[in-house]
Amino acid sequence: MAVILTGGDGYVGWPTALRMASELDERVVAVDDLSRRRWVEECGSVSAVPVAPPGERTAAAKERYGNLSFVAGDLTDRDFVKSLMDIYEPSAVVHLAAQPSAPYSQINGERALDTQTGNVSMTLNLLWALREAGLENSHFVETTTMGVYGAPEFPVPEGEFEVEYRGGRDTIPYPAMAGSWYHMTKTMDAANMRLANRQWGQPCSDLRTAIVYGTETEETRGSDTLKTRFDFDYYFGTVVNRFCAQAVAGYPVTVYGKGEQRKPMISLEDTVQSTVNAVTAGAPGGVEVYNQATRPIAIVELADTIAEVGTEFDLDVEVKHFENPREEKEEHEMVVENDRFTKLLGEQRQDLEEGVRDVLGTLVRYGDALRGHEDRFLPGVLKGQS
Amino acid sequence: MAVILTGGDGYVGWPTALRMASELDERVVAVDDLSRRRWVEECGSVSAVPVAPPGERTAAAKERYGNLSFVAGDLTDRDFVKSLMDIYEPSAVVHLAAQPSAPYSQINGERALDTQTGNVSMTLNLLWALREAGLENSHFVETTTMGVYGAPEFPVPEGEFEVEYRGGRDTIPYPAMAGSWYHMTKTMDAANMRLANRQWGQPCSDLRTAIVYGTETEETRGSDTLKTRFDFDYYFGTVVNRFCAQAVAGYPVTVYGKGEQRKPMISLEDTVQSTVNAVTAGAPGGVEVYNQATRPIAIVELADTIAEVGTEFDLDVEVKHFENPREEKEEHEMVVENDRFTKLLGEQRQDLEEGVRDVLGTLVRYGDALRGHEDRFLPGVLKGQS
Repeated sequence: MAVILTGGDGYVGWPTALRMASELDERVVAVDDLSRRRWVEECGSVSAVPVAPPGERTAAAKERYGNLSFVAGDLTDRDFVKSLMDIYEPSAVVHLAAQPSAPYSQINGERALDTQTGNVSMTLNLLWALREAGLENSHFVETTTMGVYGAPEFPVPEGEFEVEYRGGRDTIPYPAMAGSWYHMTKTMDAANMRLANRQWGQPCSDLRTAIVYGTETEETRGSDTLKTRFDFDYYFGTVVNRFCAQAVAGYPVTVYGKGEQRKPMISLEDTVQSTVNAVTAGAPGGVEVYNQATRPIAIVELADTIAEVGTEFDLDVEVKHFENPREEKEEHEMVVENDRFTKLLGEQRQDLEEGVRDVLGTLVRYGDALRGHEDRFLPGVLKGQS
Repeated sequence: MAVILTGGDGYVGWPTALRMASELDERVVAVDDLSRRRWVEECGSVSAVPVAPPGERTAAAKERYGNLSFVAGDLTDRDFVKSLMDIYEPSAVVHLAAQPSAPYSQINGERALDTQTGNVSMTLNLLWALREAGLENSHFVETTTMGVYGAPEFPVPEGEFEVEYRGGRDTIPYPAMAGSWYHMTKTMDAANMRLANRQWGQPCSDLRTAIVYGTETEETRGSDTLKTRFDFDYYFGTVVNRFCAQAVAGYPVTVYGKGEQRKPMISLEDTVQSTVNAVTAGAPGGVEVYNQATRPIAIVELADTIAEVGTEFDLDVEVKHFENPREEKEEHEMVVENDRFTKLLGEQRQDLEEGVRDVLGTLVRYGDALRGHEDRFLPGVLKGQS
């Protein structure tokens, strides 16, 4: 038996591969085509934490975890995906591969198209390949995003929810209110997961990931070679990580708008653990939705936490406010139901303050990479483009 | 000024091109890459009404309508779509091009993938090309499908609708409850239209087309060369048209299940007229949704109408019931709100009985094409496949 993990070279994918190899008895097969490295390079940026070349890094991981292996391949290629299923007959597929940046998908029509066709076809290929390989009982786990929710004026349900309209009642999936071309791909993936489940019963878990912060997990902490990437640029850095990088580089932390809108967040450590927990929990009967967030945090609270923890590292962090370039409801109080997720996660392993401490420590150590890339904190022209 | 119509070689697209050229003062540019002809051939079938080769048919149409022209091209190709916008600077784009068959999209993972990536990328390319050509005020009209609704236990709203959940209220787009890989593409297109409108204000009209019946419109009636195609096979024939073809070929009319589920329907004539009306109505402020249906009709009622009208053509039509191969709620009473559409259409031009009379008349005249293709009424192997 094997478990396939896609996106195994990514920021979340890499430490998830290590945790899966550590916790599962099955063989873990991590798949990636190294797109993330190319995208960040295309944006003129670099991982702040030096990431070893693929061969070197995977060799070190395989040395520590005998049940872990790596396959290079493009999941938009149906034949490749079919061959994966035929060879490994996975009991679970954990699908983390995606072009995951909303601002990258917004740059122009070419990126919007690549993001949507790429992300949607990967999920579709995996679902259909499971069916066509006779693996309709294998567990399909995908990390989508909390960004599928937009900013509704009702609590965000965890899964389908019952509504009333003109005298009729029905249980419906969450509507497509995502605010970027990237986020919309995860709405589409969720729709396709539901359809695969309705059509041939494929059990699916849909982990709607919040904004992830952090740089270390139990497995990466002790080894330079096993570290995961750390993006700090406007396109691929998550907001917490980017803010921390700005603080370490001596730049002010930029808050768009009033910064009072609360965003659901989660540490890298908790993201990784809960994703593995979804696998060990076994295949559900239908499509199980988890709101993979530990707590909504206001951006201004985040900035203040960074400034506060920053003093431990002798950082004098300035918090600056800019006009909001994105379409967002200011001061929107996002209420997210996450009882099911809280049960899946068990005890939270890293809160925001600890996460920020971790990130600042890592960045102070690897701060050299930031130098010369400070213009990457803000949106700007891509490499080789005017 | 020009209006671009995509899918101009299709069953609905062709007569819509003729009607647009007839009613609009603008130049009408019909775009197609002849995919529909290829798909039907791939399914081993043929149009019952002989359709002239593209060059011949378009020459005849251009001779009658001086403002009509045709462009061959693939809308999944971004550069082609961009060049269309740059050359014609359309005031409206009427997007009818799609792989429109649910059962075709269900055949296997390859067709599901082609259907989803093809349909989604065409709409996305058109929307982004409008923006990138500075045509954010041009009217984008797409015919999606009533199939996006699934079978809800509440009336189907015409556009966004207000729901209550745990003390909060908000207006939401219709959730993704489509039942096939094809239908889901129209859910995805609707989501992308909404996003384009939210992001840069593109005005959109989303005509959610019901099951279309009929074979003639005012423009096609008088001319053999200007006729539109008529598909009767399991994959590309709409249910009314397929049933009529079965009746004419002397085969029993096949009803799946009890046939009591009511399906929204509309004649070809009314489809064409209301689509042109959406253009002449001008660009809306947001995304205008129309439920493009005149009346929900039970399949068993449809079969009985065909049997009844059939007697006028000396046809002895047998109605046979088969087990339902699709996932459908039996006896589902679909209530569809369509006040906005009714206003857009104005007076209905062809009801079911008239439509069936038209179709049977056409088929009796062109019945030769059916002979040798009767096995195409039912699902089966594709040409060249086992």
